[in-house]
Amino acid sequence: MEAVAHGSCDVRFAPVADRFAEMLTHDDGYSAQLSIRLHGEPVVDLAGGTYLAARSLTGVYSVSKGVSALVIAHLIDQTAIEPDRVVSHYWPEFGAAGKANVTVRQLLGHQAGLPVAARRLSLDEVLDSRAAADVLAAQRPVWRPGTAFGYHALTIGVLMEELVRRVTGTTLQTVYEAAIRGPIGADFFLGLPEIEDSRYVPVDDPKPTAAEVAELAARPPVDALQEAVFSNVDAPEDRSDRGMSTNNPLVRRAGAAAIGGVGSASGLSQLYAAALGTGRVRIAAPEVFADMAQQQSWGTDRVLGVPNCFGMVFMLPQPRMPYGGLGSFGHDGAGGALAFADPTSGLSFGYIPAPMQYPGGADGRSIELARLAAHVVNHA
Amino acid sequence: MEAVAHGSCDVRFAPVADRFAEMLTHDDGYSAQLSIRLHGEPVVDLAGGTYLAARSLTGVYSVSKGVSALVIAHLIDQTAIEPDRVVSHYWPEFGAAGKANVTVRQLLGHQAGLPVAARRLSLDEVLDSRAAADVLAAQRPVWRPGTAFGYHALTIGVLMEELVRRVTGTTLQTVYEAAIRGPIGADFFLGLPEIEDSRYVPVDDPKPTAAEVAELAARPPVDALQEAVFSNVDAPEDRSDRGMSTNNPLVRRAGAAAIGGVGSASGLSQLYAAALGTGRVRIAAPEVFADMAQQQSWGTDRVLGVPNCFGMVFMLPQPRMPYGGLGSFGHDGAGGALAFADPTSGLSFGYIPAPMQYPGGADGRSIELARLAAHVVNHA
Amino acid sequence: MEAVAHGSCDVRFAPVADRFAEMLTHDDGYSAQLSIRLHGEPVVDLAGGTYLAARSLTGVYSVSKGVSALVIAHLIDQTAIEPDRVVSHYWPEFGAAGKANVTVRQLLGHQAGLPVAARRLSLDEVLDSRAAADVLAAQRPVWRPGTAFGYHALTIGVLMEELVRRVTGTTLQTVYEAAIRGPIGADFFLGLPEIEDSRYVPVDDPKPTAAEVAELAARPPVDALQEAVFSNVDAPEDRSDRGMSTNNPLVRRAGAAAIGGVGSASGLSQLYAAALGTGRVRIAAPEVFADMAQQQSWGTDRVLGVPNCFGMVFMLPQPRMPYGGLGSFGHDGAGGALAFADPTSGLSFGYIPAPMQYPGGADGRSIELARLAAHVVNHA
Repeated sequence: MEAVAHGSCDVRFAPVADRFAEMLTHDDGYSAQLSIRLHGEPVVDLAGGTYLAARSLTGVYSVSKGVSALVIAHLIDQTAIEPDRVVSHYWPEFGAAGKANVTVRQLLGHQAGLPVAARRLSLDEVLDSRAAADVLAAQRPVWRPGTAFGYHALTIGVLMEELVRRVTGTTLQTVYEAAIRGPIGADFFLGLPEIEDSRYVPVDDPKPTAAEVAELAARPPVDALQEAVFSNVDAPEDRSDRGMSTNNPLVRRAGAAAIGGVGSASGLSQLYAAALGTGRVRIAAPEVFADMAQQQSWGTDRVLGVPNCFGMVFMLPQPRMPYGGLGSFGHDGAGGALAFADPTSGLSFGYIPAPMQYPGGADGRSIELARLAAHVVNHA
Repeated sequence: MEAVAHGSCDVRFAPVADRFAEMLTHDDGYSAQLSIRLHGEPVVDLAGGTYLAARSLTGVYSVSKGVSALVIAHLIDQTAIEPDRVVSHYWPEFGAAGKANVTVRQLLGHQAGLPVAARRLSLDEVLDSRAAADVLAAQRPVWRPGTAFGYHALTIGVLMEELVRRVTGTTLQTVYEAAIRGPIGADFFLGLPEIEDSRYVPVDDPKPTAAEVAELAARPPVDALQEAVFSNVDAPEDRSDRGMSTNNPLVRRAGAAAIGGVGSASGLSQLYAAALGTGRVRIAAPEVFADMAQQQSWGTDRVLGVPNCFGMVFMLPQPRMPYGGLGSFGHDGAGGALAFADPTSGLSFGYIPAPMQYPGGADGRSIELARLAAHVVNHA
Repeated sequence: MEAVAHGSCDVRFAPVADRFAEMLTHDDGYSAQLSIRLHGEPVVDLAGGTYLAARSLTGVYSVSKGVSALVIAHLIDQTAIEPDRVVSHYWPEFGAAGKANVTVRQLLGHQAGLPVAARRLSLDEVLDSRAAADVLAAQRPVWRPGTAFGYHALTIGVLMEELVRRVTGTTLQTVYEAAIRGPIGADFFLGLPEIEDSRYVPVDDPKPTAAEVAELAARPPVDALQEAVFSNVDAPEDRSDRGMSTNNPLVRRAGAAAIGGVGSASGLSQLYAAALGTGRVRIAAPEVFADMAQQQSWGTDRVLGVPNCFGMVFMLPQPRMPYGGLGSFGHDGAGGALAFADPTSGLSFGYIPAPMQYPGGADGRSIELARLAAHVVNHA
């Protein structure tokens, strides 16, 4: 059996490793990294399948948002950002067109009504997000702020980046590198240095089954807002080196806050372990994370059209995606990667499958592995 | 082939005409008018089937609400109505029973909690809506204003009519005739003159299939609120000349803002073209329509029990009803009529099927025709 | 035929009695009490099946919440509690951790974000709820108050009890006994006296069918919040005399506001008849009940994951549970008991099935019986 995972696993977490091995055994095309820490100590560190090795780095799409949120947490911890202030306190232009009363808390909870820029953006405008931020600041929200929320799939990154720029004078990526990634030594980058390109494994297209393709074709027509959100950037939709994935060197070099992160599962569990206050590097006080993990948004996501649940930036466990215990915070990504921390159990979790899973987002495998790990801790 | 459509079609929009002809060919019992304008210029003007001719006028139920909303837009444009004022500023009695803080914006977004009058209304009280307005003004909202929204199927008309009466001293229908319909010469009436009765084609009952009847019978019992909303008027529910349809001369003469409009598809596309600022007649500035097309209400409609989405009065495109691009505004009606404008593409759309379609509201045909028209424009 | 019901029934309500008899005839294992009053006069008073006799008392779980809400109504009527005040006006410690602006109205509408105590509670801490109240007062809400609601299955009782303690200096149960149960002579207890134990029939486990068991097993994993809510108390989950049901003498003696009520269907219809202002005992003015029956919370319940609808404490009729006409208020309970009043029709309704029904809450039988009773009144 060649498909089983390689790496290390604390004996207590053998049920997790066993299940992961089963998954690999039963699906030749499946490859993944799985890294779990308990109170900061590595307890599962495995890679399996032919696609990803232990040292591989790859793009994780929206899992990047959770990592960018660590920068926000750090700035809240320093009181550089205060969540209950209006955004225009930091970013005066943002107050235009009915947004004067929008708070940082609402902005970060996907409530500001800016899931799509009023005009199509070039890829350059997304990567150096100042121009994109100008567009968003000037426009009328799609919904009246405070009446709805919806996944700001790309724009939450633009908004975080501009907010950080206004309060620090530098970029979110610079703060991340200086205050978080560097000190921790985490194997996860917002802006992959060229020297690490040798470890980069391209993201590949998901391979839906015939049944999934049929199910997709039978769906009702896509909502106008959803369509606009997911075609807002003038770039190829494929995984080419000119598209909007990290396969494009410009994207992975820029490390866009919403979708440009590149790293390993181990890097992700390292970061979320630090968020739990383990290790030497303080990202933010537990109270800051508890505040960011308080539910701000719940109901039917106006963009995605399904139930969803957000704190500030972070996704929270919810019926559709019960990945951690109450109080957990994290983010999933297109293709199936998932990373989160659970302050109650002390677990931090990083998981990256390849090729990308269909339909994407936290899927049955990641959820099952996360639940098994929680079960180990809760029944120890 | 006799069932195909008659009229004119710009060659670019041939795919729309072809699909419409197919629909007519494959369903002997289907008849409809379809009128589409692009930046005000007619590009599709067709009628097909044995029921409706090009010059026919018929009742369109709630499509009337969108037409009445043009009057509201006009009064907002004139600053006679300011959406963020409380309703009781214009209509002091409305402030009773916990409604003192309800704004015009909330009222028009189906949020005031008044989808049903506290007592059963006579048809007279609906047609001359002053008495109905008095009842609504005095009553406690079904829900605490600001906590929910639900389709005010009939009462949104009463509320619009009273608001217009308070700010202008005259009726919504009079303002419509003088400031909108007359100047535009639109073939759509809120209050059909007797002289036009010769062109009036009665609305008929929808003909559900056996499967649809079975599906209806298998549904859970109707909610108490929904039941109350749809039995709030003491009038026959049928299409007789004493009932609440425009087949009753009293109803079509009064042109009740919520359900009493009578006209042609061409009239509807004329009106929505004017809303886009084409032609000589200014209804309101683009900013007014953009404000009215901003989403105010989203979620599960408390009355209808399904997801729904409103701006001020206007329905907005949504997952269940993706009829236009982002920023579109319009309204559908029982029986299947649909009319809207899309400021981005420049399309205005009017569509009236007959007999009434089951289950009513924008249906697969209208949505498909609207999407085809948008496709033509976006891929020109 | 031995399974038919015994008792009395006004001839007008024969259709209700007939249907109840049919239900009993077609299910040997079914037993129930059914008591309906019209403007306070008993019109149906039946018991059938082998489990519950006319004089039996049993536990009704969350139906208790509606009875406890009568105490709240009484205190609002006396202006001892004002719904629009912040909770911390009465209970200063409650203002901690972001709850300073939470109103009594929000608290009672399941909106405060406190469906689960921050630590596991002992059964003692629930029964004498002061310690549990301290925990809840100190903690950060799960969701930002005002952004969501969710069934506070157990904690709504703790919160009501502490609120009553703060404004009266005594317990909710004492006020209930002195001001409501005693004067009315209602056969329903919050705190069953030992002398009544001889009439107590134990609650039993529901008996799901094989299909129901399969359906349950096929469900998605339970949400973290829901899991926390329903495992928040350190007590056996079974129906033993040490568990959290009224089979435990400590529970039925304490009469916990959320789940500890014991009585008969007749007692329930008596209480709700009194809420309608029939009889000599005034619980509260009709306006107080109208205010409490105004919808405060609607949408997808964050805890239960299904649509739900609350006024203050009371459940309201809704699509999932259309038990009464618009304006009705009441509560259902695990196991299938249901009690409510309908101010429009004048009906008050009490129903207790045994053994507990699966999946619990108002089920098809109670809803059908309630609708039949309403039909009798509305078509008299």
